[in-house]
Parts: sequence; C-alpha cells; structure tokens
Amino acid sequence: MAGMRVGVLGGGQLARMMVPAAVELGIDIAVLGEGPDASARLAVTHIGDVRDAETVLAFARDVDVVTFDHEHVPQPVLAALVEAGVPVRPGPDALLHAQDKLVLRRRMAELGVPQPVWAEVADEAQLDAFLESTGGSAVVKTPRGGYDGKGVRIVTAGAEAADWLADGPLLAEELVDFRRELAQQVARRPSGEIVAWPLVETVQGGGVCREVIAPAPRSAGRIADLACDIAMTVAEALDVSGVLAVELFETTDQRVLVNELAMRPHNSGHWTIDGSTTSQFEQHLRAVLDLPLGATGCRDPWSVMVNVLGGPPDGDVDSRVPAILAADPMVKLHLYGKTPRPGRKIGHVTLAGDDLDDLVFRARAASARLDGTP
Amino acid sequence: MAGMRVGVLGGGQLARMMVPAAVELGIDIAVLGEGPDASARLAVTHIGDVRDAETVLAFARDVDVVTFDHEHVPQPVLAALVEAGVPVRPGPDALLHAQDKLVLRRRMAELGVPQPVWAEVADEAQLDAFLESTGGSAVVKTPRGGYDGKGVRIVTAGAEAADWLADGPLLAEELVDFRRELAQQVARRPSGEIVAWPLVETVQGGGVCREVIAPAPRSAGRIADLACDIAMTVAEALDVSGVLAVELFETTDQRVLVNELAMRPHNSGHWTIDGSTTSQFEQHLRAVLDLPLGATGCRDPWSVMVNVLGGPPDGDVDSRVPAILAADPMVKLHLYGKTPRPGRKIGHVTLAGDDLDDLVFRARAASARLDGTP
Repeated sequence: MAGMRVGVLGGGQLARMMVPAAVELGIDIAVLGEGPDASARLAVTHIGDVRDAETVLAFARDVDVVTFDHEHVPQPVLAALVEAGVPVRPGPDALLHAQDKLVLRRRMAELGVPQPVWAEVADEAQLDAFLESTGGSAVVKTPRGGYDGKGVRIVTAGAEAADWLADGPLLAEELVDFRRELAQQVARRPSGEIVAWPLVETVQGGGVCREVIAPAPRSAGRIADLACDIAMTVAEALDVSGVLAVELFETTDQRVLVNELAMRPHNSGHWTIDGSTTSQFEQHLRAVLDLPLGATGCRDPWSVMVNVLGGPPDGDVDSRVPAILAADPMVKLHLYGKTPRPGRKIGHVTLAGDDLDDLVFRARAASARLDGTP
Repeated sequence: MAGMRVGVLGGGQLARMMVPAAVELGIDIAVLGEGPDASARLAVTHIGDVRDAETVLAFARDVDVVTFDHEHVPQPVLAALVEAGVPVRPGPDALLHAQDKLVLRRRMAELGVPQPVWAEVADEAQLDAFLESTGGSAVVKTPRGGYDGKGVRIVTAGAEAADWLADGPLLAEELVDFRRELAQQVARRPSGEIVAWPLVETVQGGGVCREVIAPAPRSAGRIADLACDIAMTVAEALDVSGVLAVELFETTDQRVLVNELAMRPHNSGHWTIDGSTTSQFEQHLRAVLDLPLGATGCRDPWSVMVNVLGGPPDGDVDSRVPAILAADPMVKLHLYGKTPRPGRKIGHVTLAGDDLDDLVFRARAASARLDGTP
C-alpha cells in the first residue's frame, strides 16, 4: 500500500463524517474546505475553491488519493489531477454520471438498466412532444447542478421550462407512479471487490431526504435482488471506486427504476454509522485506498435515520441537545456543526432495535426537538 | 448549556478516540498535545507541557471544560485552572485518587470498599514488618507515576525496595490470590446521573492489558452486582465527573477487591466503541459537559478487544493493514497513529458476535498480524 493519506474535496458533512472513520482506522485525512467554518473544519488543511485547478493541485500534493464530499468538482479540474498523476477515486469518467443527468440516462439505456421514460429536450417544441407522449405532464431537470430538489420542476407545457431551456438542453422524464423510493448502496475498490448493504427505503419531502428505514420493509426477495443487481451492474460498468448510492423508484406495478446516482457517501447511508458493521464512511475510505472491504450486515433488525432539517428558530442548536439525549438514552445524535437555516441539513438521528414503529416514532420525536418542539 | 467546547490535556490515544465521538455529537474538541506527532494530532490546537501552568491556562482560555487524556497533570496546575474559573472534570480532588495510590487506599478503607491488605511503608523495617504479616512476599508500588506495570515490584525483603524508599513512602500490598481481573466502568455527570456498563474481564500480561471480554464470562449475578456497587459507591463518594474505570481482582474465594482507578476513558472500555450503544469516549464527553448519559448495553452477546502491542519489526504498520482487513470482514481495526516501539500500545481490534471462543481466536489472529505474523 502506497500510503494512507486521503484528501477530500469539499468540507461539508460528508467529509466531516469521514473524519471519525479515518481516526479509528489510523488514516490521515485532509480536507479542502470552503472556509474556516466548514462542517469538516477539524480536518481542513487547505481553504479554497474546488473549482480552481491550481488550488486543488496544491492541496493534492500532500495526499495519496483524492476523493469527494460532493459532485461539483468540474471535469477540467479532475483532468488536471489525473494529468498530475494523482489517484482520483471515483475517477472523472465515473463521476460524470453523477454530475450530468443526461449522460446518466444515456448510459443506463446502453446498459439496459430499468429507468423512467426520458428524453433530451432542446426546445419547447421537443418538450411539448415529450409531454404528449407521457400523458401531458413530466418532470424536467437541469442536467447539472441540481440536488435536494433544486433544478427539478414538474411541467405540463414546454413554455413552463423556457427559462431553463435558454441555458441548454434539459432532461425530461415521465412522472413515475411510484409506491415508494428506495436506495441501494454498494462499495467497490479499484481491484474489483464489491459489497452491498441491505436495500433501504427513503422517505422524501420537498425534494429532500427526510427518513431512511434499513432494511427496506417488505423488500426481501425479488425487489432486493433487483436493486442489488442494478447497483452492482452500474458500479462495475462505470468502474466506480468508493461508495455508490443508487436512488430507485419502486413502481406501483412492481418495477424498480433508477432515479439518480451518488458516488460518495450519501444521506441514504447515514444509518450505517450506527446500524451496520461497516459504516459507509469507513467503507468509502477503505475503497478509495483499495483496502479490503468490511462486512455490510445490519447490526439490528431495524435502523431508522431521520434528518434534522433547518434547526431551531433561534439558531441555538446546542441548547436543544440535553432534552434530546435525556428523552431517549438509545438515540444516536449526529450534528454537523452547521449554522441553522430553513431547510438546511444540520444533523440526523438514528435509532436501532426490534420494533420498527416504535423506532420511527422515537427518531421523529428526537429530530423534532431540534426544530422548535419544546 | 454554557458551551460545547471540550479541551483535553494530553494528546495520546485516549484523546484521539474522543475525536470521533466529538465530531459525531457536534462538540468542538481541542487538545493540548506533547508535539506535532501526538496520537490526537488532528485535534491538537496547542503544543506544550501539561505540567506547565501557564501553558495549560492559555490552552483553557478557548474551551468550556477541561478533561484528561491521562492522570499526570500536577495538582498545582489543576488548582490554577480551578482558580481561573475553568471547569475541570473530573475535579482535582477526585483525580488525586487516580494519581496517588496511597490516597486511594486510605479513601477506599474509609469507604469500607473491599481492597487488598495494604500498608504505607516509609522504610525497610516497615516493609519487612509488612512482609512478615503477609507470608513473606508483597507487591510494592510507588504512590505516583506508575502505569502499565511501571512502578510496581514484587519483593520478599525490605532491602529490595531500598532505591524507591529513598524517594519517599511506598504502598505495600498483599499478593492477591486472584482468579482473574475484572474492570467495572461507570460514567457520572456533575448533576449526579450515573450509569454503568456491563462488568468486563481483562487479561493482563507483563503488567499491561492484553485482552478484554465483555461482558465478563460467568459473572452475572453476585459478582456483577458487587462490582457495580463498588464502582457506583466510589464514583459518588469521590464526586467523579466523566468515566471511571475500577480495576478489580476476583479472588479465588469469590471476593472482589479494588486494584486501581482510572478517571478517564480506559483500555478496559475500548470495546464500547463497537460493542455498546454508547462508547466510553462519547459518554465521557457527555459526562464532562453535564449532558444526559447514553445507554450502556451490549450490542452483541460478546465483544472481544485485543490490544496491538509493539507493532511489526520493520515499523511499517500500514503495510499490514490489508491482510488484517482481508482476513476478517467483521474485524474493527483501530490504529492510534503512533510509531511502533516494543510493548507500545499502537492500536486495538474488536470483534463482536455470538461465539466467544471464535471471537477470541479471530481477534488474536488480527492483532497478531500487526506483530510480525505474515
């Protein structure tokens, strides 16, 4: 093994949550953060813009491998890293599929992976034609830059996407009649080893992940097998290094369709910190360092993760902590050291145990205490 | 709550392992470390000597509460902190019992807590008299500064301790005929809440902890109750804040005797990182911040922790990691970022599951791979 120094581009909560895993495994971790208040500030060694090649190259000089907190590092910057001989994991070609939704759709189609009916639309007429074929309404997405519900719009006429079309082609998709949303996470290392966590159910609200239940209820058998096959196929075909989350729709007619990909630790996998033998953060570090991967089983029959969005109106997160911990000695509280803002993910809570309904109730109660409930 | 910034005096592996817990809970952690290579280097904000009051006071200015990686901070330095209004947890009076073995023995006697037969001996004649009363052999200990087998000697004549006696009185103890060693860990917060982890068995070798089995086999019932009562009595009587480990002898005649105390996270509690709902490191931070304490149950029927002592002859720890992880996907490897030296604790491994014999075998195998086994 060449070295154990991992550099992370971006200093958000995903970089932050890699820190505990790195500390335990004896891996040195360095973060290129946006500023001194970055969520991952403890491990920030360089402050700067991940879109600036010179900044990123200077940061990469002190690490053995570069990986990511988010997908927003431009391809030219990634190319400069590769050119300089820095191992970049996942690699630029793989990462492109998490950066560009049109590239993703084309590639999934080539692979024969099930996905919603879609089209690339360059103008209002093309979008109108697509709408006609899909019953009069559709989802349009900007190919790049969208996340957590941003860059996504439901339309019933081409004119409703005129503003976005002015900037380039869009992805149009059928409105999927889905029963629920699922996520399948796998990890793959450069030498090819690949492991999968159990399929999970994700509950979205306002385009943002709210809750995750692991494993996904009533999914054993065909649905779980399908989801696992899809994620492994994608990870191998795209030569992913690191963790890969495949967001899925389970349709009312029992199909499983690929929604989006994330090639980094993902909100749908936060439950693994407390609920799996190997957390997604530890696994990601192991994978990008090409270390053997860890066991991915559930430690309890059920794990429930609920996000903390926004935070208390007075912004004083710390003052809410005692009541949360006092109310439930089993709750695992995770706070990201971020300033509360409406809708901002500032933490999550996890509960694990035998009784799913009870866990959901308690996890929601714990999360709600950070949102203004006394 | 006044604040969530914890300062740790000392940058060893115990400070290091507080870092993941702090990161997850959203607590800011700062460490006064011995140098840039300290095990807890990621959180080191000040480099200096914990025995220097000015250094410690300067460090403490930026934190809300001060706690410890080790017990070697002199009482005058602690007094200066208290004088300056800094919350010190555990407090100097409590900590003295972990610093001075004679103070400990006197206090345990006052409390009626069972302990070995002991005496304070100021010269050879007094030690000879003690030896006569205990069958001709005894353990002598320097009251201060000893740890991991240092400052401990078995003698059969007063003259054998002449060198140590020149520096002051010693603690003499009967050689306890023990069946095994146990450790009971509790956590207590300033407002009085106290919780106990399950009693564990510790296996020592050369004066150093080698293995821990949690819970201690065949201890349910009377032995576990006794140990828990002792630890709770001590924590309350000494007004301990933080975690307290009580090292115990289980004698061949079914008694439980107090050996030593540690008022900080302790080697006997490393299994809690992977094996308990709340790790000793998280609990210590919660306790010193006076936050409600977390659940202390075992997550699995058995957890086995084996220390990694020394490291590979060539000093290249990293190169051994792949084989360890490949051999056992369930193993939790913890490395402290320390340079290997003979006998030095450089990490530990934990395995949890149903089959104790199997776990012990696998944990020893994983640890051995770091000690030269190919």
